[in-house]
Amino acid sequence: MADVPKLEQGCASSLELFNSIAAQGERVRALKAGKALKAVVLRVLLCSVCCGIETHCYKKQLPTDAGSLLGNRSESGHSDRKQWLTDEIDSAVQMLLSLKMSYKAAVGEDYKADCPPGNPAPRGDGGPDATEAGEDFVDPWTVQTSSAKGIDYDKLIVRFGSSKIDKELINRIERATGQRPHRFLRRGVFFSHRDMNQVLDAYENKKPFYLYTGRGPSSEAMHLGHLIPFIFTKWLQDVFNVPLVIQMTDDEKYLWKDLTLDQAYGYAVENAKDIIACGFDINKTFIFSDLEYMGASPSFYKNVVKIQKHVTFNQAKGIFGFTDSDCIGKISFPAIQAAPSFSNSFPQIFQDKTDVQCLIPCAIDQDPYFRMTRDVAPRIGYPKPALLHSTFFPALQGAQTKMSASDPNSSIFLTDTAKQIKTKDYSSGAMLTGELKKALIEVLQPLIAEHQARRKEVTDEIVKEFMTPRKLSYDFQ
Amino acid sequence: MADVPKLEQGCASSLELFNSIAAQGERVRALKAGKALKAVVLRVLLCSVCCGIETHCYKKQLPTDAGSLLGNRSESGHSDRKQWLTDEIDSAVQMLLSLKMSYKAAVGEDYKADCPPGNPAPRGDGGPDATEAGEDFVDPWTVQTSSAKGIDYDKLIVRFGSSKIDKELINRIERATGQRPHRFLRRGVFFSHRDMNQVLDAYENKKPFYLYTGRGPSSEAMHLGHLIPFIFTKWLQDVFNVPLVIQMTDDEKYLWKDLTLDQAYGYAVENAKDIIACGFDINKTFIFSDLEYMGASPSFYKNVVKIQKHVTFNQAKGIFGFTDSDCIGKISFPAIQAAPSFSNSFPQIFQDKTDVQCLIPCAIDQDPYFRMTRDVAPRIGYPKPALLHSTFFPALQGAQTKMSASDPNSSIFLTDTAKQIKTKDYSSGAMLTGELKKALIEVLQPLIAEHQARRKEVTDEIVKEFMTPRKLSYDFQ
Repeated sequence: MADVPKLEQGCASSLELFNSIAAQGERVRALKAGKALKAVVLRVLLCSVCCGIETHCYKKQLPTDAGSLLGNRSESGHSDRKQWLTDEIDSAVQMLLSLKMSYKAAVGEDYKADCPPGNPAPRGDGGPDATEAGEDFVDPWTVQTSSAKGIDYDKLIVRFGSSKIDKELINRIERATGQRPHRFLRRGVFFSHRDMNQVLDAYENKKPFYLYTGRGPSSEAMHLGHLIPFIFTKWLQDVFNVPLVIQMTDDEKYLWKDLTLDQAYGYAVENAKDIIACGFDINKTFIFSDLEYMGASPSFYKNVVKIQKHVTFNQAKGIFGFTDSDCIGKISFPAIQAAPSFSNSFPQIFQDKTDVQCLIPCAIDQDPYFRMTRDVAPRIGYPKPALLHSTFFPALQGAQTKMSASDPNSSIFLTDTAKQIKTKDYSSGAMLTGELKKALIEVLQPLIAEHQARRKEVTDEIVKEFMTPRKLSYDFQ
Repeated sequence: MADVPKLEQGCASSLELFNSIAAQGERVRALKAGKALKAVVLRVLLCSVCCGIETHCYKKQLPTDAGSLLGNRSESGHSDRKQWLTDEIDSAVQMLLSLKMSYKAAVGEDYKADCPPGNPAPRGDGGPDATEAGEDFVDPWTVQTSSAKGIDYDKLIVRFGSSKIDKELINRIERATGQRPHRFLRRGVFFSHRDMNQVLDAYENKKPFYLYTGRGPSSEAMHLGHLIPFIFTKWLQDVFNVPLVIQMTDDEKYLWKDLTLDQAYGYAVENAKDIIACGFDINKTFIFSDLEYMGASPSFYKNVVKIQKHVTFNQAKGIFGFTDSDCIGKISFPAIQAAPSFSNSFPQIFQDKTDVQCLIPCAIDQDPYFRMTRDVAPRIGYPKPALLHSTFFPALQGAQTKMSASDPNSSIFLTDTAKQIKTKDYSSGAMLTGELKKALIEVLQPLIAEHQARRKEVTDEIVKEFMTPRKLSYDFQ
């Protein structure tokens, strides 16, 4: 992404770019071969020639004095060296990723190792995060893999340039919160992150942060998969005791789907009930519909315009795969999903504070929005949001794609009856053995029934209060 | 237009860029010749000719101690050095590319080693409303003609597909209002229209309509030319007795100019004082800043999103000449200037009425926005706004262009002293004979002095009331 600003003006030699990508790929492989000394030296060298775009600026990731870094290296042990290597790999992968994006922006097709520019291959309809033919395809609108084993999440970490949530990080979360890590962490449902260590640093130094997650209300009913980020976010809210904002992107769904504004807003309110039923604390949680909040908060709109000024169409095209035939609403929408990452979008909660760090738990298909956000943040004087990425919830038909609200048979809906669950599950053929099916049904039926019971208790008044811009039970001066 | 987002980040002169590219080219050649040391030295040298664009600033990228960098290099072995060189070359080539991109963005042409900047290419970003070489160029940002007689407005009517305001229409306005037509009608200052007869039909059938005009607050001071639509709009408000909304597009100016949000909003408030000084009725007029009203009216944002869903980037490109390098804020902005054409953007005035016809008096360079609006209106179930188009107020230097707030000598500002008016006018050389100049000064000095006196009476409280969303003295059920 970060290279796009330069290539946006369009006249790069695609061959030079092709060669840069090949060279950078070489480098990533070399790094993965694990030459720590070389990694550090390379990083120092790159620091002096790096393209200068913040997301590449190694200097920010280095101790202030490169010399002392090398000194420290020899003093410090194996684990430190490992950490440098990890950092170096992350950064190198970031660079590779942005080169590929630039390549796509310049050439109009994904980079293919065996296919130099000039021998065009059919264009995929996704952004550069979409993968080469035969590999996984992941963007905010499509998740598809040819492998029956499902998405290769390790590859995704490499391609997206995020970091793996390893045992070390999970242990640190346990130490910081004094709580047993949530099963979604222990079992790798949340498997990837950006800057989580920075959030923990802040937390350990008693600096405040806040949580931001969201939901695109594409239908009245949510399914099991939708609950995952919310179940985990509720746990984060409980163990860290921080404010939480939840964005319902009804404007996005109006722009992308064949819905009226009233339908989209109606879905937002219905979905809010399912979200509230996860048990969020009304004194610590603000849920908002874009269609409603945009017209209720000048501060929110001001951040949207700030972001929109700092992202070009070429960048949006490179990140999201937009085309000239897309409506201008889609093209500018990413700024609206980005804006809640900045605390002064919510003056009723944070006063005029612009520096409260944001942590975003979300499924990894939402990462492109926040890579864009993280690239813009320093250019408009805000901290980058940190992220925790979850895997997708496999469709009933198999792991090749995720549960989708638009395909009833792919999903177990929170509105399904016990009988529907039984039937749907059996309809999925060879996915499970009879015993497993039976066990699954026994788990799902009560789980869904309990959720439905909690949801019944969520009155319109409660929803209204959650969705009213107001101070939460935290004091920011 | 397209390069504003980049240039605002720094202040590189085209020549500095040109030199940086030359130096960087040298460096790449040196690297390819394997002279790593020379490359490092060149890199340090480049710091001093660095173009200053944030994303290029080598200073930001150099390790704190370049000496230790070289020291570290000698520590490691030959293969490492080879690897550094490869990386150094990759990054240097990337940098060279990005400098060339920035050069193209700043200068409008590709970098040519043998051709320093100074003969910039003619502006190439006009849509179909822009004219072929030798003809008039008219779009919302540029008005230019080669003819000393000024813009050929009859040709413009043909090209824009509007209708001439003829004697018949002027007579009909006189019959309908029982008032002598305003001198701007009699003298052809307002010379073109769309659907004005439809507005008069409605008026004669006692159906309500409303007026909408606006101002892009690009500077604190307005000039004479800016007053024309407002003087005429005030007359329309008086003779038709209808509600009036005035949009201050401070968000547009933030997106297009090198301004902060606060500056843009500040200009909006200052300009509002000049507009109020034209004598608008506070009970019949609502003035709003986009940055403020977007965050104060869900109905307004909902119309913006509706319009954004129905305009593709291709259409926006065709109408406004946007390029892929334009920021996504510019690309989606036209929907924000379109939205006030629909009465339900102002529920405080029109309740939930969607069918109150809108009449827009404006200078004809704003027509592209409203051609787009009229194209979208029926597709989202709203009536098309009608328009009355004015000519441009010629610059003091001559009729080839219009008065511009950005060029002090082109304009008589409402803040000018009698002495400034005298001096500026004489400076304009052959424009008028001495007698005419004398007469003009005699007209202008008191006119401006009176305006300044009226403006003094416009208190912050009065501005605040004009800019508060509220019911006007009309009842819409």
